[in-house]
Amino acid sequence: MSSMANSIKAVELAKEQRDISVAEFFEKNRHLLGFDNKRKALLTTVKEAVDNSLDACEEAEILPEITVELIEMGEERYRVVIEDNGPGIVKEQIPKIFAKLLYGSKFHRLRMSRGQQGIGISASVLYGQLTTGRPAKIISKIHPDEPAHYYELRIDTKTNAPEIMKEEIKEWKKRQGTRVEIDLEASYQKGPQSVDEYLRETAIMNPHTTIIYVNPKAEQMIFPRSVETLPKLPKAIKPHPYGVELGLLIKMLGDSASRTVQSFLINEFSRVGPDTAKDILEKALVTPNIKPQDITRDDAEKIIKAIKNTKIIAPPTDCIAPLGEELMEKGLRKEVNAEFYCAVTRPPEVYRGNPFVIECAIAYGGQQVADQPASILRFANRVPLLYQQGACAITKCVQGTSWKAYGLQQSGGGLPSGPVTIVVHMASVWVPFSSEAKEAIAHYPEITKEIKLALQEVGRKMQRYVHKKVNMHQQLERASIFERYIPEVAASLSKLSGEKEQKILEALQNMVKKEDIQKEILQMETLNPEFEGPEKEKSEESEE
Amino acid sequence: MSSMANSIKAVELAKEQRDISVAEFFEKNRHLLGFDNKRKALLTTVKEAVDNSLDACEEAEILPEITVELIEMGEERYRVVIEDNGPGIVKEQIPKIFAKLLYGSKFHRLRMSRGQQGIGISASVLYGQLTTGRPAKIISKIHPDEPAHYYELRIDTKTNAPEIMKEEIKEWKKRQGTRVEIDLEASYQKGPQSVDEYLRETAIMNPHTTIIYVNPKAEQMIFPRSVETLPKLPKAIKPHPYGVELGLLIKMLGDSASRTVQSFLINEFSRVGPDTAKDILEKALVTPNIKPQDITRDDAEKIIKAIKNTKIIAPPTDCIAPLGEELMEKGLRKEVNAEFYCAVTRPPEVYRGNPFVIECAIAYGGQQVADQPASILRFANRVPLLYQQGACAITKCVQGTSWKAYGLQQSGGGLPSGPVTIVVHMASVWVPFSSEAKEAIAHYPEITKEIKLALQEVGRKMQRYVHKKVNMHQQLERASIFERYIPEVAASLSKLSGEKEQKILEALQNMVKKEDIQKEILQMETLNPEFEGPEKEKSEESEE
Repeated sequence: MSSMANSIKAVELAKEQRDISVAEFFEKNRHLLGFDNKRKALLTTVKEAVDNSLDACEEAEILPEITVELIEMGEERYRVVIEDNGPGIVKEQIPKIFAKLLYGSKFHRLRMSRGQQGIGISASVLYGQLTTGRPAKIISKIHPDEPAHYYELRIDTKTNAPEIMKEEIKEWKKRQGTRVEIDLEASYQKGPQSVDEYLRETAIMNPHTTIIYVNPKAEQMIFPRSVETLPKLPKAIKPHPYGVELGLLIKMLGDSASRTVQSFLINEFSRVGPDTAKDILEKALVTPNIKPQDITRDDAEKIIKAIKNTKIIAPPTDCIAPLGEELMEKGLRKEVNAEFYCAVTRPPEVYRGNPFVIECAIAYGGQQVADQPASILRFANRVPLLYQQGACAITKCVQGTSWKAYGLQQSGGGLPSGPVTIVVHMASVWVPFSSEAKEAIAHYPEITKEIKLALQEVGRKMQRYVHKKVNMHQQLERASIFERYIPEVAASLSKLSGEKEQKILEALQNMVKKEDIQKEILQMETLNPEFEGPEKEKSEESEE
Repeated sequence: MSSMANSIKAVELAKEQRDISVAEFFEKNRHLLGFDNKRKALLTTVKEAVDNSLDACEEAEILPEITVELIEMGEERYRVVIEDNGPGIVKEQIPKIFAKLLYGSKFHRLRMSRGQQGIGISASVLYGQLTTGRPAKIISKIHPDEPAHYYELRIDTKTNAPEIMKEEIKEWKKRQGTRVEIDLEASYQKGPQSVDEYLRETAIMNPHTTIIYVNPKAEQMIFPRSVETLPKLPKAIKPHPYGVELGLLIKMLGDSASRTVQSFLINEFSRVGPDTAKDILEKALVTPNIKPQDITRDDAEKIIKAIKNTKIIAPPTDCIAPLGEELMEKGLRKEVNAEFYCAVTRPPEVYRGNPFVIECAIAYGGQQVADQPASILRFANRVPLLYQQGACAITKCVQGTSWKAYGLQQSGGGLPSGPVTIVVHMASVWVPFSSEAKEAIAHYPEITKEIKLALQEVGRKMQRYVHKKVNMHQQLERASIFERYIPEVAASLSKLSGEKEQKILEALQNMVKKEDIQKEILQMETLNPEFEGPEKEKSEESEE
């Protein structure tokens, strides 16, 4: 081919180059957002709306009361309606929040919340529009004296901008809150990856929340709150120096309003005071009173190296709100009918500058099936993770723990088997998910280390219980054997000692204390009175 | 909390709402793009650049010659340099192509190519800038008589727009082509998920390409092309009606320049002629001469239903260029030193309106290790997939096939074991990847069905070979046993018949034909003369 043709080709190719809007991108790659199939589409839509409602209520310090309604509209057509008693959304923000991808308040701050990317709910609106052609209907009210604003919204995928189909003021009896209505192609099924399961697990992990749920068969389920106090509101923090890379530092220096690089370090990072700042800059051989904008790339690189060689205390942890051992155990007691429960909340740790806490709980025995793989319940920032178990760091850690030492069966590299439920919760200012659908936690070594330590802690506690139980059963067996020989022994002793046979018999029987052992075993194996739920159905129909 | 406080809260919350640029999003979620760790970052960067070079050369119908150079610049610092002999890029496009995410020519068209999302190479530039603070350096020339344009580029993450640090005309001896240079934090290692492995597999799947590779130890490897013809250039097609959803149809109707809905159907879809269009509209009870823009949502929904109930021939398949059975087998022969090879190219199929072809090849026996899991080589549009094997539809299909029937070992739900390499290639206008990093194929039922059929086909061919081989060995054994009794039998027969013992002995030995069997077995087990590579190292250091 001649060169002339090539240069024409380059010009031709250039003509085909185009911007791709983020909405177009996710429209085509919808499986990245959790819309791979109709069943999952329903769950994802409910999840995104409920997560937003919970975040909004907690930020406004309102005890959440959320209504979830699924209505079957036709063959594979459902209407999802989510209503909350949250703070509402100001009129101007409604279109962008619901009909623009990558828009939100949670991405740019370091504070624990369920939402973090500004994609979720608008992705549901996009999916609904794609499959049914219908706009999302939103109503929101921020105060009893203010009007309620009603919107019908679509996303213009070519520009990723909201398209307002209708906009009006509506009567709404609610004092304040937000109501979202989305029509979509979906399918409804109960079972392990269902909306039902998601709401049940959400209730466990959010004991301050009341959820009223009406499924497509018009059956109402209420999950009432069991705690009347809100979790402590996490505070936003500044980035910690250890988590900052060169490129980010250069960007922050360029954007900074601080007058000197020293005050820049103090103002824009957490845990950097005047001494630490001076220490860093001395090590980097950078003059403290240079303007941030005048720092060269090479100097910035020296600062990064100096940060790595400076001892800086860990970031504050009031940016995260773990559930705590007590509530972890309480939640599990409501969920699983077992004999033994325990929970552990690990001290905060840091990955890439982001603080996080791992919590773990375990329920052993009782009505749980003995010869099946353990049930694993995974949570991230109080949100249940129902898909992609195999890809999740939590699963890998459970598989990588030696459960035989703790009294469970386990064959090479698999999940442990036994009558056991294992709950793991990661709370963080930024949970690193393995995809936009937020279904599995990515494998950061700092995180997996903490998960393993938490599992070992609950494992050891469980082991003590299992060991004691085995021990009691062995005692009971020995007592039973001995008991059988008592009459014979009593007769012999009576002959030898001249004591009355009956008296010896009674004394010996008292010695055995079989009833005490039985009573103790019975007590150990007693199911907990807090259990509420129906027995968990183990169903086959879970995803690959 | 009082309602007044709530309404203030809503206003406060509104202030925090912000746009999130797609560059900021991927900066924070870099693991979604294949930058989870330093080793993978190096591979991803090379992969994105090489994929782009191959696409560009093929579009311009130039036999690709690509140079890949990795230079160690310091501790965990590498420079990646990729140079091609492609058509070059016109000056104005250079900044956007390399320093803007979601920009490209491949997203909006239906035609097989390696790149498809307009993210890859700019993500590498972003990662380099983030970890080293250095801009990417690009030089490109579209014709021997045109000047070469040199750029130093960064991405402004706040706006996802290119930042031009330097721009000049440079002397470049090359007739035409593009050279990309990116500095990044990385680590280099050989082994199964290395740059070396990626380039080796790329050479197998692209026999028309010459790759010259210099690794960080300054060792040069050359993969010369083995075929002097380019693959047939795939043609872009229009969407097929079966793959169009309601939302997309409504959008297309709104944007259409056609005068009537009938001509809209004919002009904007593949495989819709006047008769099919009429048929669809009759079924939908929609008048054919309505303007596309006047079609209501309800009518659009009727059209979708009518499409589903109309027989429309499958989309044309000249939009994809599978490798073909001959080249599949040839590539494998160069790669693996085995006894038996076979390959299958399935007929084209369609998922969500997208045509695709599955190809599969197998190599059995020879120098391959017998008691290890089979080696699986996965490819999508001729690109090797080295990560996330467990998440890939190809792996699931290999695991879901009953290999025992084909003569391999397999324990419940796992990969087959045996001296075998299995290659699977999906070629499509749109490969549905499970993440932006394009490492695994998502589980669409239409796709998994085809993969399974292809595996069964090569499985059966292999089974015939394995069966024959087992048979020959049994024959040889029987012959050996018989041989041992020949002298005795000959003696007895001689006595009975009066014939000379030596004559009978020779006749009997002729009957056995042990040498013939041995010769045939030897021939079967002969390794192929085309094998070139070093024996494949099975290393442990592969990703989770």
